[in-house]
Amino acid sequence: MKVAIIGSGIVGQTLGKKLVELGHDVVLGTRDPNKLDEAKGWAGSLSDWLTAVGNKATVATFAAAAAQGEIVINATHGMASLEALKIAGVENLQNKILIDVANELDFSQGMPPKSLATDTTSLGEKIQAAFPDAKVVKTLNTMNCQMMVDPKQLADGNHTVFISGNDVDAKSKVTELLQSFGWTDIFDLGDITSARATEMMMPIWLRAFGKLGNVPYNFKIVVG
Amino acid sequence: MKVAIIGSGIVGQTLGKKLVELGHDVVLGTRDPNKLDEAKGWAGSLSDWLTAVGNKATVATFAAAAAQGEIVINATHGMASLEALKIAGVENLQNKILIDVANELDFSQGMPPKSLATDTTSLGEKIQAAFPDAKVVKTLNTMNCQMMVDPKQLADGNHTVFISGNDVDAKSKVTELLQSFGWTDIFDLGDITSARATEMMMPIWLRAFGKLGNVPYNFKIVVG
Repeated sequence: MKVAIIGSGIVGQTLGKKLVELGHDVVLGTRDPNKLDEAKGWAGSLSDWLTAVGNKATVATFAAAAAQGEIVINATHGMASLEALKIAGVENLQNKILIDVANELDFSQGMPPKSLATDTTSLGEKIQAAFPDAKVVKTLNTMNCQMMVDPKQLADGNHTVFISGNDVDAKSKVTELLQSFGWTDIFDLGDITSARATEMMMPIWLRAFGKLGNVPYNFKIVVG
Repeated sequence: MKVAIIGSGIVGQTLGKKLVELGHDVVLGTRDPNKLDEAKGWAGSLSDWLTAVGNKATVATFAAAAAQGEIVINATHGMASLEALKIAGVENLQNKILIDVANELDFSQGMPPKSLATDTTSLGEKIQAAFPDAKVVKTLNTMNCQMMVDPKQLADGNHTVFISGNDVDAKSKVTELLQSFGWTDIFDLGDITSARATEMMMPIWLRAFGKLGNVPYNFKIVVG
């Protein structure tokens, strides 16, 4: 499948590498594809990434990437997602599954960053409203990117990923993609308004990180 | 131990019954102790509750209850907690452990109720600010009251309760109380500001309830 990833930081690079390993045709969208040698925040440069994926992927502008993707993944910083997706182009997202893994986190006040999520709106809903013809599916936003692509690293995968979206068929296809990553406990919360609930989990994830540090961990809904 | 519970609805009654069973001296605070025969929302009347606990507890006003308690539990509706605790009396909470199990949920727009929690403030912090000489410990607010008092009903207790508060000794005493309820996975998130994180979990709890219905479930932080 042709997958476009909007955002070339640590999240985009990690998802992209996994998708390449799974045999998908990946195009990584970045603001300036000429800056291949610049380190990307917590990630390495795109030159290094292209080498790491055996040059089996390409790098393009947000718009060129989105135009090529059958499925598009929003892996930008949540605070910049709407702007980045507008640059990607409403026409390039039309009728496509748009997987949103981002959270609106404000780092301007220091660590831990403050989540902007509330129980009245969410980034997932804002994206759905801005791109009404895209099929927005919110998922994977309650963990770090290493856990997103390798759930089996922890408790043999016995923990939960959530999924929210209005389009049942889109959620079904994203569920298959999650299964190909190794996910088995996939909790469908309902329509895109339920993205509020998962985005509001960022603070507990961050507080847990403050206590646990850089070890693998994740949430599970234990059901009797 | 003499435990005062502020709030005589389903949460207060359930906690009170468990504490009586554990041998504590419980006084249940209610707005009008003369209305013993009135049903309390989702719970029965206080007459029925007194019978259920073998008349080994008493019912009193918020203030009389708080005055008697060595430990005080806030089991009121979160939207009414500050007012109820003011009626209980700042002088009756001074230097005491005040366990806050409440969440600010607005039921006025229908179901599911909307959580007022955000990543800039929390009910736990508001209570600590209003009663600076009380030792506020936020806990048990991420589950229903049957789960609060009987964690072993689910996965032999293999799931998580969170605890937040500024006073380390108070958290240690509350941890012992939680252990007496059967809790083994007790996650200390840090100071009272971390109550934001657990209060922001109400929406995911409520969305999960919408899908799972009335079966036992709870969160677990799975750690590798």
